[in-house]
Amino acid sequence: MEQYFVNQIFSTETTTIEDTEIFKHVITVLRHKVSDKIYLVDELKGLYLATIEKIDKDNKTITFKLLKSDKSSTELPVKVTVACSLSKKDKIEWITQKSTELGAAEIVFFNSQYSIMHWKENVIEKKLDRLQEIAKNAAQQAKRRIIPQVSYLNDLKKLADDESKLKFVAYEESAKQGESSLLVQSLDQSSAKSVIGVFGPEGGFSPEEVDFLQDNDYLSVGLGPRIMRAETAPLYFLSVLSYNYELSSK
Amino acid sequence: MEQYFVNQIFSTETTTIEDTEIFKHVITVLRHKVSDKIYLVDELKGLYLATIEKIDKDNKTITFKLLKSDKSSTELPVKVTVACSLSKKDKIEWITQKSTELGAAEIVFFNSQYSIMHWKENVIEKKLDRLQEIAKNAAQQAKRRIIPQVSYLNDLKKLADDESKLKFVAYEESAKQGESSLLVQSLDQSSAKSVIGVFGPEGGFSPEEVDFLQDNDYLSVGLGPRIMRAETAPLYFLSVLSYNYELSSK
Repeated sequence: MEQYFVNQIFSTETTTIEDTEIFKHVITVLRHKVSDKIYLVDELKGLYLATIEKIDKDNKTITFKLLKSDKSSTELPVKVTVACSLSKKDKIEWITQKSTELGAAEIVFFNSQYSIMHWKENVIEKKLDRLQEIAKNAAQQAKRRIIPQVSYLNDLKKLADDESKLKFVAYEESAKQGESSLLVQSLDQSSAKSVIGVFGPEGGFSPEEVDFLQDNDYLSVGLGPRIMRAETAPLYFLSVLSYNYELSSK
Repeated sequence: MEQYFVNQIFSTETTTIEDTEIFKHVITVLRHKVSDKIYLVDELKGLYLATIEKIDKDNKTITFKLLKSDKSSTELPVKVTVACSLSKKDKIEWITQKSTELGAAEIVFFNSQYSIMHWKENVIEKKLDRLQEIAKNAAQQAKRRIIPQVSYLNDLKKLADDESKLKFVAYEESAKQGESSLLVQSLDQSSAKSVIGVFGPEGGFSPEEVDFLQDNDYLSVGLGPRIMRAETAPLYFLSVLSYNYELSSK
């Protein structure tokens, strides 16, 4: 059953949605009728089973009867940010979509020394709008309760301002030196409710960039013995966090 | 430093490679010279530091001096097979490349009832050749010691013949019923050295298909609370296995 995010806070048993995008998808594309059901998520992350009561084709509005759902959350119990160096459009879009499926709460793209791509100031907003749309669609399909926020930092150094309580940078050199347990140990020992993972470009980070991050409380970790591509590493990281926090055998 | 697989078993201190693909890449594209070093992996998964001693441009051969490397393995300690329902070319190629980066030993594509794609008999070999090439390149870049084998089953039922000791099918209905611990518990309790994960198409498996797999010792597991796309789920699975077997904090 499809799920849509709405820019409202539900407070009554019935609601009329005036969202033209939702109208188009639910009525025009999927041809739902009165008494059909879909899921809606409001701004308070509330999940509601919504039964269509009335369709107004002239004004493109739908009136729903709402029933609060007690389905368990689909969100990770900690807030996870993935921060990735800029690369080509395909990869950026893929990272945004997949990171959303895998539970990221925030997706940050940043400039680093060896990035092969750079965004000009005048195109940033348009690019972020596009990525935000991808995140929204992926979040709806993945049945998330929030839409991850996508943002851009024009300087890696701004990662020093990130307020996550547990911070990691995936550094190939650490992996080469055989570092394989720090990530898991840190997750095991920490009660942090917010985590960030930082991932470099195809050419990696410069030693100065890693020093800077380490000076700002980022732990340099290996992600296993194989070398992963720039767009694969954040997905590995999110999957590992899901294992740690959600696939409970503890 | 680049790494290449060679179709030989190294047994002496020096070897002459007659592989035109390697010659093209090492000499023509990368312009390596005598005394430069690369890595070679032979058919026994042996990793060798190879120093160029002689370049024969007429015959396109390179003579290397070999030094066995004691770098630890980049392979998962268990043999992992990912089996995915056929889908569009892009997705199949992504799955092949990413599964290789993430350590799969075998990658199987199969027909299932709700697959949106089907391969005609006369194109199968060509398609598999292409995917095998993708796996080889990805394995070299990921610094693997083996090249995953890519194969195709024209009928899901042939998955009954898979000889892995621990078998899972990712089933959305299990996740919806809140199943979240069986995968991890099974990995924890099992000393199996071979594991297979089976992943359905965008439309999911039919109940009959799941029954068939369960009758053939496949455990139906959830992969966390979010719905993942068909191409994401196998990557989540491989990452979880890497967490379990490689990111040791045990």
